[in-house]
Amino acid sequence: MAREKTAALIVVGNEILSGKVADTNSTFLARELRLLGATLRRVLVIPDELDAIAESIRAYHPAYDIVFTSGGVGPTHDDVTIAGIAQGLGRSVVRDPYLEGKLREFFGDNVNDARLKMAEVVSGTELLFEGGVTFPTLKVENIYILPGIPEIFRTKFQAIGPRFAADPFYLRVIYSSEPESTIAVMLNQTLESFPDLMLGSYPKLNDPEYRVRITMESKDRDYVERAFVKLMELLPPRAVVRTE
Amino acid sequence: MAREKTAALIVVGNEILSGKVADTNSTFLARELRLLGATLRRVLVIPDELDAIAESIRAYHPAYDIVFTSGGVGPTHDDVTIAGIAQGLGRSVVRDPYLEGKLREFFGDNVNDARLKMAEVVSGTELLFEGGVTFPTLKVENIYILPGIPEIFRTKFQAIGPRFAADPFYLRVIYSSEPESTIAVMLNQTLESFPDLMLGSYPKLNDPEYRVRITMESKDRDYVERAFVKLMELLPPRAVVRTE
Repeated sequence: MAREKTAALIVVGNEILSGKVADTNSTFLARELRLLGATLRRVLVIPDELDAIAESIRAYHPAYDIVFTSGGVGPTHDDVTIAGIAQGLGRSVVRDPYLEGKLREFFGDNVNDARLKMAEVVSGTELLFEGGVTFPTLKVENIYILPGIPEIFRTKFQAIGPRFAADPFYLRVIYSSEPESTIAVMLNQTLESFPDLMLGSYPKLNDPEYRVRITMESKDRDYVERAFVKLMELLPPRAVVRTE
Repeated sequence: MAREKTAALIVVGNEILSGKVADTNSTFLARELRLLGATLRRVLVIPDELDAIAESIRAYHPAYDIVFTSGGVGPTHDDVTIAGIAQGLGRSVVRDPYLEGKLREFFGDNVNDARLKMAEVVSGTELLFEGGVTFPTLKVENIYILPGIPEIFRTKFQAIGPRFAADPFYLRVIYSSEPESTIAVMLNQTLESFPDLMLGSYPKLNDPEYRVRITMESKDRDYVERAFVKLMELLPPRAVVRTE
């Protein structure tokens, strides 16, 4: 049995919902998790609001192996992710002595309440130092709390990435010159023989080379190869532009 | 009282969760709705699965004024959005006579079951023809069903966009050369005087010009202007790089 790991990402992001900033963290995380063999099952973008965060944590924390949050962890009024996760888990917010020490060391006499807010964690939080990061990543239960700034989100994820490795996905691709409505029946026949295949069909407009990209995936390489042979037999030869 | 319209977007997208394709429809929709004065409250990306679609419809349909779906409406096996919405609303899937006629006209003798699948709608669906589209947009209850292909998603949204107009947001921006941890206390003081202000604070790394972009928003223009004056008085003059 293949090791399976399911994940969900909660993006705390007024700036994304209001169209000011394009979310790139979810695209990055989706690609990275796929490469690691983990399965991203949900991406949810919510406002920077305590109740919205708490509610999403209550829904996702028990439902997925891994939950990531992105954003809402700075020193300002609208940074309520820590408080929201605490509320969702029924835990309290506490000041972490190690983080407080680091902030006092860094800011010296210029330390203030806003700066010390960055030492606040959900009670029971684990500090993750792998990857040689200067400021540790926060983990509580199965929840990894990442900052929203894309550069830092990436650095922090890459530091802890190896934790999420599962058995890899195996992928074959067929590019078809025939439209979806022509080849749909052949895709369905393939699925009847290979019901566990993850079969994707993605139309492309105005591409001179192909009209549909067909993806065939599974954690079982042999299963994908057999399904690939089956579909190639079903498709009219002129339909297949190329394969990967 | 300002007219308020809340919206949610459900993206049906295995291709996005598996990292194959970057979701651009949510970014587009967030911007367009903001310009129209409507408030996007949730973006949810789910797999192409009947139960996941039905569950999200049951949660969002009663909670928001407008619900959009993106993707899962083509002729293939993995296009289950119509069936998922029907299940979520407790309605049946029926073949629409107008759409069936159009498809038979278009495909002639080459019509097949997969092609006729595109005539399937949730019982009680309204066909929206505004904007002179060739194929109407489907609406059932408060749910607008849009295709996932970005070019078509955009065209279809723009055709129905005027339906979603509300009172516009008014925005002022201050670019600060001081970091968030320095100005947080001034942001908090501004919020104490203007509790209904939507105040955003977005740090930027490695930008020679500024370190934080501060956004101030409301549907009440005068309220934003007064808050803007207040915050400008609180910030040290050297901190303000420029304003918009």
